[in-house]
Amino acid sequence: MTRILGVDPGTRVLGYGAVVRHANNRGLRFEYLECGVVRTPTGADMVERLGVIGRTLTEIIEELRPDELALEKAFHGRNAASALKLGQARGAIMLLAAQLGLPLAEYAPSQVKQVVVGHGRATKHDVQQRVRLMLRLRKEPSADAADALAIAMCHGSRGPSLVPVPSPGRARPKDRKVAR
Amino acid sequence: MTRILGVDPGTRVLGYGAVVRHANNRGLRFEYLECGVVRTPTGADMVERLGVIGRTLTEIIEELRPDELALEKAFHGRNAASALKLGQARGAIMLLAAQLGLPLAEYAPSQVKQVVVGHGRATKHDVQQRVRLMLRLRKEPSADAADALAIAMCHGSRGPSLVPVPSPGRARPKDRKVAR
Repeated sequence: MTRILGVDPGTRVLGYGAVVRHANNRGLRFEYLECGVVRTPTGADMVERLGVIGRTLTEIIEELRPDELALEKAFHGRNAASALKLGQARGAIMLLAAQLGLPLAEYAPSQVKQVVVGHGRATKHDVQQRVRLMLRLRKEPSADAADALAIAMCHGSRGPSLVPVPSPGRARPKDRKVAR
Repeated sequence: MTRILGVDPGTRVLGYGAVVRHANNRGLRFEYLECGVVRTPTGADMVERLGVIGRTLTEIIEELRPDELALEKAFHGRNAASALKLGQARGAIMLLAAQLGLPLAEYAPSQVKQVVVGHGRATKHDVQQRVRLMLRLRKEPSADAADALAIAMCHGSRGPSLVPVPSPGRARPKDRKVAR
């Protein structure tokens, strides 16, 4: 049993999603824990945004106690300026992982889609639908939160073949808005 | 009197340089404190590298007790992949600044060169020579450490006009190599 926190990094909106991976001789299933987004204050500078991300993720990690982190490594098709920004969000999360001693793995968006939807060119909505089905959620999580859950399951699906089995997940996406 | 730590970010080699800014009615002078480079372990993954950067910078900050941080914001002419890497180093440093409650300012390389050398197209060696003269060092610091000192002085030179006055600086560049 492994608790995995998936993170879809961004400096304005960051998606997070946590699952528990249960593996036995009948296969693998994922239990839903929590998902949501972290919104950073509009008009804030980068240090302030990353500070909010750092504090909120630390809080989430203290609550959900993941054993491992999984991060999306997307930057294809971006220009240098937006790659730099995304890098900053990723660097903050990576430093946090190092500080907290949590192992962190990275997955390309196509790998995540391959595992969750079955092919690498799935749309955001395909991912939301599949995540809802796999975790038996009552409603679809927001795109960023669904991505984060998909990243967590992509990480957890290495090893025994992926057999999504009913889990008593609740759809309770949290929207951690942080006041300036 | 303000203690300023300049940082030239990078994921393999990171330059740092600390000065004390003394301002009075005769002008502004900088006193040299320390400079050096942080080298991250060859072959290490990004989380490990950023962890080393985070721990070593925390140690440096605890020793040198800067009031303010200054960071170079360079990414022009880079492709998305190297901008992403540089962003990661910057994001880790920015999170650290937020965690430690230290104000952080950013300067483009051309601004730094303008202040230290007098024009924005100076070479690395021009910067090394000028930094040595301005801080009365016995020898030139390495390029990365000199850049970091130049960034710190660029930050400190806002306000009263820049008048480099003799300071009893010692050339004692530290090379913080961190064993894997």
